[in-house]
Amino acid sequence: MPQSLDELRYELALANRMCAHEGVLDAFGHVSARHPDDPNKYLLSRSRAPELVEPGDLLEFTLDSQPVTPTNVRLYGERVIHGEIYKARPDVMAVCHHHAAAIMPYCVSGEEIVPVYHLGAVIGVKAPFWDQRNDFGDTNLLVIEPAEGASLAKALGPHWVVIMRRHGATVAGRSLRECVFRSIYSVRNAEYLTQAKLLGTPSPLNRVETERAGDYNLAPGPVARAWEYWEMRLTKKGEAPPRGKATARSGKSAAKAKPAAKRKTATKKAATRGAKKTAKKGRR
Amino acid sequence: MPQSLDELRYELALANRMCAHEGVLDAFGHVSARHPDDPNKYLLSRSRAPELVEPGDLLEFTLDSQPVTPTNVRLYGERVIHGEIYKARPDVMAVCHHHAAAIMPYCVSGEEIVPVYHLGAVIGVKAPFWDQRNDFGDTNLLVIEPAEGASLAKALGPHWVVIMRRHGATVAGRSLRECVFRSIYSVRNAEYLTQAKLLGTPSPLNRVETERAGDYNLAPGPVARAWEYWEMRLTKKGEAPPRGKATARSGKSAAKAKPAAKRKTATKKAATRGAKKTAKKGRR
Amino acid sequence: MPQSLDELRYELALANRMCAHEGVLDAFGHVSARHPDDPNKYLLSRSRAPELVEPGDLLEFTLDSQPVTPTNVRLYGERVIHGEIYKARPDVMAVCHHHAAAIMPYCVSGEEIVPVYHLGAVIGVKAPFWDQRNDFGDTNLLVIEPAEGASLAKALGPHWVVIMRRHGATVAGRSLRECVFRSIYSVRNAEYLTQAKLLGTPSPLNRVETERAGDYNLAPGPVARAWEYWEMRLTKKGEAPPRGKATARSGKSAAKAKPAAKRKTATKKAATRGAKKTAKKGRR
Amino acid sequence: MPQSLDELRYELALANRMCAHEGVLDAFGHVSARHPDDPNKYLLSRSRAPELVEPGDLLEFTLDSQPVTPTNVRLYGERVIHGEIYKARPDVMAVCHHHAAAIMPYCVSGEEIVPVYHLGAVIGVKAPFWDQRNDFGDTNLLVIEPAEGASLAKALGPHWVVIMRRHGATVAGRSLRECVFRSIYSVRNAEYLTQAKLLGTPSPLNRVETERAGDYNLAPGPVARAWEYWEMRLTKKGEAPPRGKATARSGKSAAKAKPAAKRKTATKKAATRGAKKTAKKGRR
Repeated sequence: MPQSLDELRYELALANRMCAHEGVLDAFGHVSARHPDDPNKYLLSRSRAPELVEPGDLLEFTLDSQPVTPTNVRLYGERVIHGEIYKARPDVMAVCHHHAAAIMPYCVSGEEIVPVYHLGAVIGVKAPFWDQRNDFGDTNLLVIEPAEGASLAKALGPHWVVIMRRHGATVAGRSLRECVFRSIYSVRNAEYLTQAKLLGTPSPLNRVETERAGDYNLAPGPVARAWEYWEMRLTKKGEAPPRGKATARSGKSAAKAKPAAKRKTATKKAATRGAKKTAKKGRR
Repeated sequence: MPQSLDELRYELALANRMCAHEGVLDAFGHVSARHPDDPNKYLLSRSRAPELVEPGDLLEFTLDSQPVTPTNVRLYGERVIHGEIYKARPDVMAVCHHHAAAIMPYCVSGEEIVPVYHLGAVIGVKAPFWDQRNDFGDTNLLVIEPAEGASLAKALGPHWVVIMRRHGATVAGRSLRECVFRSIYSVRNAEYLTQAKLLGTPSPLNRVETERAGDYNLAPGPVARAWEYWEMRLTKKGEAPPRGKATARSGKSAAKAKPAAKRKTATKKAATRGAKKTAKKGRR
Repeated sequence: MPQSLDELRYELALANRMCAHEGVLDAFGHVSARHPDDPNKYLLSRSRAPELVEPGDLLEFTLDSQPVTPTNVRLYGERVIHGEIYKARPDVMAVCHHHAAAIMPYCVSGEEIVPVYHLGAVIGVKAPFWDQRNDFGDTNLLVIEPAEGASLAKALGPHWVVIMRRHGATVAGRSLRECVFRSIYSVRNAEYLTQAKLLGTPSPLNRVETERAGDYNLAPGPVARAWEYWEMRLTKKGEAPPRGKATARSGKSAAKAKPAAKRKTATKKAATRGAKKTAKKGRR
Repeated sequence: MPQSLDELRYELALANRMCAHEGVLDAFGHVSARHPDDPNKYLLSRSRAPELVEPGDLLEFTLDSQPVTPTNVRLYGERVIHGEIYKARPDVMAVCHHHAAAIMPYCVSGEEIVPVYHLGAVIGVKAPFWDQRNDFGDTNLLVIEPAEGASLAKALGPHWVVIMRRHGATVAGRSLRECVFRSIYSVRNAEYLTQAKLLGTPSPLNRVETERAGDYNLAPGPVARAWEYWEMRLTKKGEAPPRGKATARSGKSAAKAKPAAKRKTATKKAATRGAKKTAKKGRR
């Protein structure tokens, strides 16, 4: 999916908001994307709640998670989660780090998450665990040092979802949309798995079913259908991101420049443009 | 309930949105209706999230699940669920396929769903299981081949709800409104059953109670009351479908032709008309 | 709380909507009030979802649950729940019959509901069970015959909440506001009790605590604070009932006479008036 | 964080609404703040649901929980919770008393709440229990007498969260924002702990992890990010408090003076101003 930088910036802001709106992210957590033209860079918002991210908040980082252009805006503390995974996994184009309610009980109890329905197959055949204690002893549980990020990336290995003990999860994708789709449906899968465990004995997908159902659901058709749906849900609430050009670096983000009421209107117009674009794409 | 094709198209779009709004459907799942004038055809949306379906998205299919008029719009992969049930069950006028959160733990654990309150009686005396593995081995778990749809229809037998292992459920009705009513209240029943199992030992309805309570609740009065309620909930949010005439085939769906803001207004007006119509009907 | 009939009609429509909005009622269930000037009559809506009830929908019934003025509008099937309780309990001024999600697991499992926090004390020291099977064998589980209503009223006895096996609950109050308060907080109590049972062993309130906490919370102050809150939540969404004068009998309910958009505005104005009135009352 | 009284009044009204909007408070519960210029006074609303609190509702109280200026408006019955904690703990600048759904099962069952993820570390290493029965026998479970408040403050000791048997919880903070942050994330932690207990055996944070993660998350950066998020969520719904100057004492609160529709607009404008202010602060 070759994509212009501007379009990707818009979609990345959208992805942050979608994940928030669908219950994957709250005040914390973030979605990043590898730079479309330079595999040695990635895009991530300045530090703010993902539901509020605008294209103008997105900054470029090196794979060592340093801002490409020096900045004095506040940055997320856990950027290395993204950078170290992009380093270790050239096939990964997007990363979502989250603390969704449905996966937290797995982070806390150490019970394994397995795919239990066709859409849950997007998790893949294994969601490995990572326990910061093993490599680093008693920490603040945040992933801030490059070594911590590298350890997490190593635990992820060739998989797509890694469960972080007493912390959350990190999800990777071969595209931004795949990453969002996997983030949302792995959360749904965890909800159903939990309830099934309380009711009786879950009968998970086997390896072949997981691979086949994963492939089917990550094909362009289903992903486009879900993307249109999540985008329209934001748009109907006037919560799709504005199509702002200003960068956070310049200190003139849309959020700062306009009062909320005007921004809302602008958001709606922008979202409409987005919705139409998506609709056309979905049809291809 | 003799009904014009135009009215049915509107109600079918509404049914898709209602089921989404009441938590039965999300980005996936779909509701179809048998053609009112030709029992050998049925109506189903082009591939899109049910919350977004408009009358203009609805296409006609043969019972072999082929579009009556050739089209290049994307179609749902699982159409045969609908076509094969209409073939096997001449009494069925509408079908809903879904993955509602409350039934998923039953799909995963294999625990049986039984009616545990008067409204849950609409499930009927039995909700059989269908496991794709038994007939087809390792698949992607989707129901795409006619043989898969036929196997599912056979498992449904003379019942109204079939639970699909590791996948979801399919619900049938003698009318569109009955199908929606059964879909929504079988989901509520599953929620209460799950909680009751965690608390103690459920005391389900017996066969006679199930039949009597099912008959009472599926009478025109209760169904009309619930339909008015679900429609008004959509209408109050401006989410009832537009009264568009354009067909998906023509490539001019309302979604494409108008920006979101205008569509919203149109939707509200249409919904008002719908609400008044329903109110009159409910009074008959 | 002496109250004009007009004011009571407005508050009763509001009570139906509040209970729906706070998750006690859905398409089904209803709240009634004894007639303020004639203890041998009560007010209840024509058959429609409680979230939609308007003052003009409220009809007068005798304690035998017959409409005082002949009507051809559809009536609720379960009116005798209300009439028979008003007959048996002269101290009861309002009744709410519901199927709230949190109490259903108790209806299904037969586990007892006990007050587990100060606000849950409004349930009273005992919430007896009623099983229609005991007196009437296999039924449709609905409470339609006067004998069924009388049996339920007998089970309620001197208490305030009766749990109906495989069906729901019925809640009584010495005033409309008390009935709404008890309905909502008994549902919250059931939620917490369920979770506490899953975690360990609940330590309920003892009899004296229940009586003292019940008395405190049902005093005018706490009830007015909660009522203002529930009313404002409806008002902020434009969902408070209109101040319509038309009666359902006349066939000119506000719902029929005006399109939704206009009604919404009317509703907002009416609600504002209501909010101000309530605020003043709360201060007395 | 030196702060003008006017700014604190606005933030305290906001804090009450945030906690309500994020599911910590409902019709009951309240957030207070110590007076910024006089440590022997604190600010708390007149008696009303926290979702409705406006700056003009906030009154000044002595640490004996008496209004500084005599008033005839209705006051919260449980003011001593705040006053006695301010007396006992000079380091505490804000207090939130609540009955959030997720902590109630702990109040009821007596199971201990422990931090199970990095954000839950804000609870601190221990959340002690307080059982009113021990000191006072059978009561109405409310904390109304100074001796009851003092007993609760003693149970809190040097900690930050105290769980009140059969009642709720009380949370303290070294600043208003810290108190809100702790209230919300201790509730999330309780949700995840409950689910983890149902799934298997929770592996909580140890003491060092709790202290380190607590310190990290309560630093200005994370707290500002979350505060901006919670404020914007209110603002987007038009539910941030108005910037009213009128005091409850004067009997001219904004709520009384203007109809709802106008108030909504005013609220939006005020909220926009608030959002801009916060954004600037967050950047410092």
